[in-house]
Amino acid sequence: MTENRRPRTVIVGGVAGGMSAATRLRRLDEQREIVVLEKGEHVSFANCGLPYHIGGVIEERSALLLQTPESLRARFDLDVRTGHEVVSIDRDARTVTVRTAAGTEQIAYDDLVLATGAAPVRPGLPGAERAHVLRDVADVDRIVAALAADDAPTTAAIVGAGFIGLELAENLAHRGLGVTLVELADQVLPPLDPEMARLVQDRLEAHGVTVRTGSGATAVEGDDLVLADGTRVPAGLLVMAVGVTPESRLAREAGLETGARGAVLVDAAQRTNDPHIYAVGDVALKRDAIDDADSFVPLAQTANRHGRLVADATVGRTVKALPVLGTAVVGIFGLTAASTGWSEKRARAAGRDVRIIHTHPADHAGYYPGATSMALKLVVDAATDAILGAQGVGEAGVDKRIDVIATAMRGGLTASDLADLELAYAPQYGSAKDPVNMLGMVAENLANGTTRSLQWHELDDALAGGAVLVDVRTAGENAAGAIPGALNIPVDDLRARHGELAGREIVVHCAVGQRGHTAARLLTQLGHTAVNLDGGYRTWAAATRTVPAAV
Amino acid sequence: MTENRRPRTVIVGGVAGGMSAATRLRRLDEQREIVVLEKGEHVSFANCGLPYHIGGVIEERSALLLQTPESLRARFDLDVRTGHEVVSIDRDARTVTVRTAAGTEQIAYDDLVLATGAAPVRPGLPGAERAHVLRDVADVDRIVAALAADDAPTTAAIVGAGFIGLELAENLAHRGLGVTLVELADQVLPPLDPEMARLVQDRLEAHGVTVRTGSGATAVEGDDLVLADGTRVPAGLLVMAVGVTPESRLAREAGLETGARGAVLVDAAQRTNDPHIYAVGDVALKRDAIDDADSFVPLAQTANRHGRLVADATVGRTVKALPVLGTAVVGIFGLTAASTGWSEKRARAAGRDVRIIHTHPADHAGYYPGATSMALKLVVDAATDAILGAQGVGEAGVDKRIDVIATAMRGGLTASDLADLELAYAPQYGSAKDPVNMLGMVAENLANGTTRSLQWHELDDALAGGAVLVDVRTAGENAAGAIPGALNIPVDDLRARHGELAGREIVVHCAVGQRGHTAARLLTQLGHTAVNLDGGYRTWAAATRTVPAAV
Repeated sequence: MTENRRPRTVIVGGVAGGMSAATRLRRLDEQREIVVLEKGEHVSFANCGLPYHIGGVIEERSALLLQTPESLRARFDLDVRTGHEVVSIDRDARTVTVRTAAGTEQIAYDDLVLATGAAPVRPGLPGAERAHVLRDVADVDRIVAALAADDAPTTAAIVGAGFIGLELAENLAHRGLGVTLVELADQVLPPLDPEMARLVQDRLEAHGVTVRTGSGATAVEGDDLVLADGTRVPAGLLVMAVGVTPESRLAREAGLETGARGAVLVDAAQRTNDPHIYAVGDVALKRDAIDDADSFVPLAQTANRHGRLVADATVGRTVKALPVLGTAVVGIFGLTAASTGWSEKRARAAGRDVRIIHTHPADHAGYYPGATSMALKLVVDAATDAILGAQGVGEAGVDKRIDVIATAMRGGLTASDLADLELAYAPQYGSAKDPVNMLGMVAENLANGTTRSLQWHELDDALAGGAVLVDVRTAGENAAGAIPGALNIPVDDLRARHGELAGREIVVHCAVGQRGHTAARLLTQLGHTAVNLDGGYRTWAAATRTVPAAV
Repeated sequence: MTENRRPRTVIVGGVAGGMSAATRLRRLDEQREIVVLEKGEHVSFANCGLPYHIGGVIEERSALLLQTPESLRARFDLDVRTGHEVVSIDRDARTVTVRTAAGTEQIAYDDLVLATGAAPVRPGLPGAERAHVLRDVADVDRIVAALAADDAPTTAAIVGAGFIGLELAENLAHRGLGVTLVELADQVLPPLDPEMARLVQDRLEAHGVTVRTGSGATAVEGDDLVLADGTRVPAGLLVMAVGVTPESRLAREAGLETGARGAVLVDAAQRTNDPHIYAVGDVALKRDAIDDADSFVPLAQTANRHGRLVADATVGRTVKALPVLGTAVVGIFGLTAASTGWSEKRARAAGRDVRIIHTHPADHAGYYPGATSMALKLVVDAATDAILGAQGVGEAGVDKRIDVIATAMRGGLTASDLADLELAYAPQYGSAKDPVNMLGMVAENLANGTTRSLQWHELDDALAGGAVLVDVRTAGENAAGAIPGALNIPVDDLRARHGELAGREIVVHCAVGQRGHTAARLLTQLGHTAVNLDGGYRTWAAATRTVPAAV
């Protein structure tokens, strides 16, 4: 290709990262030729809305299609070609080979941006050829068609209880199907810790979704999905949502370096080891914000942000893609579950010494109507007081608190610093001591030794070691549900009755941890050795619950 | 007082700051005697809930009373005495003189905490003796009684359109009264800039509240409030909500140093110039987070946080009260208005060179049902890219964005850094490029010269100087409402038609600023001089609107 032409940037993939790069690039450079090659039928579609069109929440399919090649031509002078699959890259010649319905062609580039995304993993299960996946509008069309058929299935099995699996479960249940969610791990929503994920499972089950955790799918037989334990799950509709893998074949075959999970290695400017080739979005490797390790985080927000950086980089600006926290959120039957950074299990697996905080605050002042309770969790580096991660599950206000903590992490605030954040308070919106402030106050108390706490998974060992467990809730609360073996002494009676505990190591607990804190401080000052069960009865109950319960 | 006794902390005032100090102090020191003296009938009541009991939103009066002396005795061994007014301090003797129904007494202290709060300002208006104020439960009782009387008023005039005034307006309208809100300034909600506050005024007017800005009240005559311009406002019920003043008489008479507005000067440990006396909450002076100047910020959240610090300080811990941003939020007929840090007018008055950004994003992805639009504003220091402040007005998600920005400010992130925040995204909760990210992207474009913008209040001068105003919205949008004199060239037609603009300085605008940005970039690259009207038609329309309109 030696034609006399304008500088040309070719972008492979026309959704989040690719399209952000294309439109930004045009705003930066009116002269450049910008060609977007998309193997599918659609560009710039609403990826994250796909499950909701299946459920009918987003009624119109057209609502998913945010832009068309024509609208992008008119607004941004982009040359967008759908049905164009790039099959190979010739790095020396700086050309890509493109396959279309009409044959193959070569297209030259000055800069090449790989935004090929990630493909759903399809487990090689016998009989699973009929399984659906959910990646693009064509996948949605297939599922919608199956559900509209005369012999439409009445049951659905979803393999994988991550974000997409949960959203599909909700939406298929909305459509009236009997839904079973199958997850190999021992919990739904693996980015969360189990006692937090349990609240999500409760909600799924309360809405009629059958949840099978700790079971791998082994085969598809007729209408059934067969699990490793022999259970047969009705699977009139079968959807695989077990994760995605970077679509990096093109890159690998062209000799570009890849890293974890096969994602394409890039520098802080999203540049690969070929200075003329960038990668962005799910196909590109990220770095983790906590430990700077290679990280595969397939999230739309990162793809969009990094797409913008690629455009800046290609016009010669200095850019720096930041490591990622992996902040994410999902709605499940009115419940919100969100997380940022590392979970407790991840931090412990990485050998970090951590302080863990569970709270159950109201989303706004309890005296104002409509307050609901949420579960929050903060994972703190014990050595530095750095925030490693946070999780939240609740009816309202969870996304706000996780966003605030993600921002605090980016700003380098410590866990104790959260106590001092000035957040907008009126009784409809929060509390004078916001849930995030409270996390900070607990963190500070732990950091300076004002209080000591015990995690739910440490309780059995403590009791086996001779500690006495004291439930400082009221007698009525204790009667409504208690931890086996707990002695009930309401906090307000402790000053009078603490002599009963003489000579024992004491674990106190209340409903959520707050009265427990008061009790532990009181007992400590009265000469006892006392720790507070973090998160109280609620966290313990969620962690140890085997029978479904409403949240 | 030389009796042999335990160390004693006396706290004057038993609401937010005082009660936070008292309960924290008990958790830190079981041995200390803690006496709380409250001149009113109630302690630990829900200050910020008061307007909502008047409106019936909080139905039960008892919901306002969070604690009683008895419950605080049982839980925290506090000696809480209501109906105890401290009338003087003898610093040498370390005693306070207390007046009760039974007479006066002296109480000795080792540490004294002044948490006397702030009192509503009562303008000395002829005839205004019957005016209500809203500070405590007794005030609420009086207003509720007036509204329940046989000759209950059917009209209400509220003087002062700050937070309390707005909440009262909403709640009295809920009760069916014809409400007039009178404000001396030219806008409601003075902490906001006028074009943002206009959206709040629109909402008030849409719900039948009459708003009289720029008018001072001069007298009360019969049932009417008379304004400076001669207008008579029906004021069957009259409430003064013109602000509060620190209740620092005690402190001043005891020779404690005071600063701006008469608030008590304290160090970072909330200690006054007497090492045995602390002040906290509304009575204490704060420092401003932007310029470290003295600042009077009467907010519940700060009182609560600082109360906790006082307790730590009195037991010898090193604490550091941080300067305040003054983050605040108010709900008005379903609309949320929130702000943090400085407004544009405040920054300009302080001589700062600022960059201003207005956006009108959706609270969540537009393709997901229920998305609503909000107005956001960011005030940026032009020299440093530091965030000076932010404001938001909208149906949903405003408090979240202001909290995120307040957190970013505390973490020292720049305006451009907002582009890189990783916020929780699913289509119900936000956008892949969250409204806060978008503010950061605009900030970065302004900082590095990628785009130039013009504020609504700079438009007239630009046009007078010969610039041409180009509306790049569609013809339909233009027909529905346009800025006088604007030439309509839709952005998608600009490449073909830009020759029409040759030789002119160009101001482009669209609805909200986004297409305007694309247009300005395009025109600039095509050799024109173009700036984008910040915030587009919507900001201009709000700023220049004189006729009420729905938001």
